[in-house]
Amino acid sequence: MKLLEERIRKDGVVKPGEILKVDSFLNHQMDVDLFNKLGEEFKRLFADRPVNKILTIEASGIGIACVTAQHFHVPVVFAKKAKSVNLDGEMYTTKIESFTHKRTYDVIVAKKFLSEEDHVLIIDDFLANGCAVNGLIDLIMSAGATVEGVGIVIEKGFQQGGRILRQKGIRVESLAIIESMDDRTGEIVFRQ
Amino acid sequence: MKLLEERIRKDGVVKPGEILKVDSFLNHQMDVDLFNKLGEEFKRLFADRPVNKILTIEASGIGIACVTAQHFHVPVVFAKKAKSVNLDGEMYTTKIESFTHKRTYDVIVAKKFLSEEDHVLIIDDFLANGCAVNGLIDLIMSAGATVEGVGIVIEKGFQQGGRILRQKGIRVESLAIIESMDDRTGEIVFRQ
Repeated sequence: MKLLEERIRKDGVVKPGEILKVDSFLNHQMDVDLFNKLGEEFKRLFADRPVNKILTIEASGIGIACVTAQHFHVPVVFAKKAKSVNLDGEMYTTKIESFTHKRTYDVIVAKKFLSEEDHVLIIDDFLANGCAVNGLIDLIMSAGATVEGVGIVIEKGFQQGGRILRQKGIRVESLAIIESMDDRTGEIVFRQ
Repeated sequence: MKLLEERIRKDGVVKPGEILKVDSFLNHQMDVDLFNKLGEEFKRLFADRPVNKILTIEASGIGIACVTAQHFHVPVVFAKKAKSVNLDGEMYTTKIESFTHKRTYDVIVAKKFLSEEDHVLIIDDFLANGCAVNGLIDLIMSAGATVEGVGIVIEKGFQQGGRILRQKGIRVESLAIIESMDDRTGEIVFRQ
C-alpha cells in the first residue's frame, strides 16, 4: 500500500537488531486517520470472506483492529497476556514468545467469545517470526472456529513468519512488506 | 447516555467485590459500532475544547480512544505499562496502582509524544478510584501540556475517583455513572 510505504519511509526509524521503530504513528502514538485508510484496505482485501469477528492481541494490535472492525461492522476480541492462567476451564490459553520483550507470555481468550460459529480475521500491527499470529490461530483452532485470514500492517519479509503461514495455506495480507532494511543508511526496501 | 445504560443493564454482570463485568462489549470483546456512538458523544461533550491529542492507557482504553479519536481527527497516544523503566531521559514516567490486578505499574510515555503545545483529552473505559487517570494527568503535567478533560465510559460513582477529580476543577464526563450495584440481585442504579 503506497500511502503506508511512504509513511514508513518518512517516519520509520531503522535500529540495529532488525528493529523498525514506527512508534510515531503505529504503536505508541497512533494516527487514527491513517488507521482508517488501512482498515478500508483490509475490508477491500477480505471482502470475499464471511468475517464475523476480528481477533487481535494486546496492546498495540487493539487500535488498528478496532478501526478496521468499523469497516466490517463486527466485534473485536483481544487476546490478553496473562500473569497467571486461571485454569477454571473458562479460557482458551496458549503461549506466545515475544520478539520485542524476549520472554514468553500466557495468552488467553474467554471461551464465550470464540465458538465454532465464528469466522475470524486476525489483525495485528507487525508480523515477524509469526509467534503472535500462530498463538492466535491456536486459540481459534481450540474453539473450533474458522481462520478466514490474517491482516498485517507491516510484515518483516526477511523473517520467516509470513512465509510459513502462507505455506500452511493461510491467507495473509500485509499492507507493507519489508524486503530489507539497513540501520546504517536507514534505507528500507519494500517487496513489490 | 441512555443507550449505554441499557447495554450495561442488558449485558453487564455484577460480581462480589464491587466488580462490574462488561467484557462482552467493552474490555475483552469490543462492540465497535457502540464505541462509535460513544465517541460521537465524547465529541459532542468536548466540542468546545481545543483537543489536539487523546491520551489513554493500555490495554482496554486503546479501542475506545482510537474510535473516539476518529471524531476529533487527532492522534492517540497510549501510556505503556513498563516492566522496567529505562531511565534514559526519553520517557515521562509515573506509577499507577491497579484496582483489578492489585499491583503497581510503572507507566511511561515517550517525551516526543507529549509537549507544552498539547491540549490533551484523556479517554478510558473505567473510572473507579481514579489511579489510572491521576497517573495520566501526572504524565501530562510533566510535559507541561494542558489537560482539556477526561472522558470515561463507565464511572463507579460510589468510589471516590470522579469526585476528587471534579473537586480539583478537572472536567470529567462519564457516559454512565453507577450510583450503586448489588451482586446478589444484579441490580444497577445509575446517577441521573
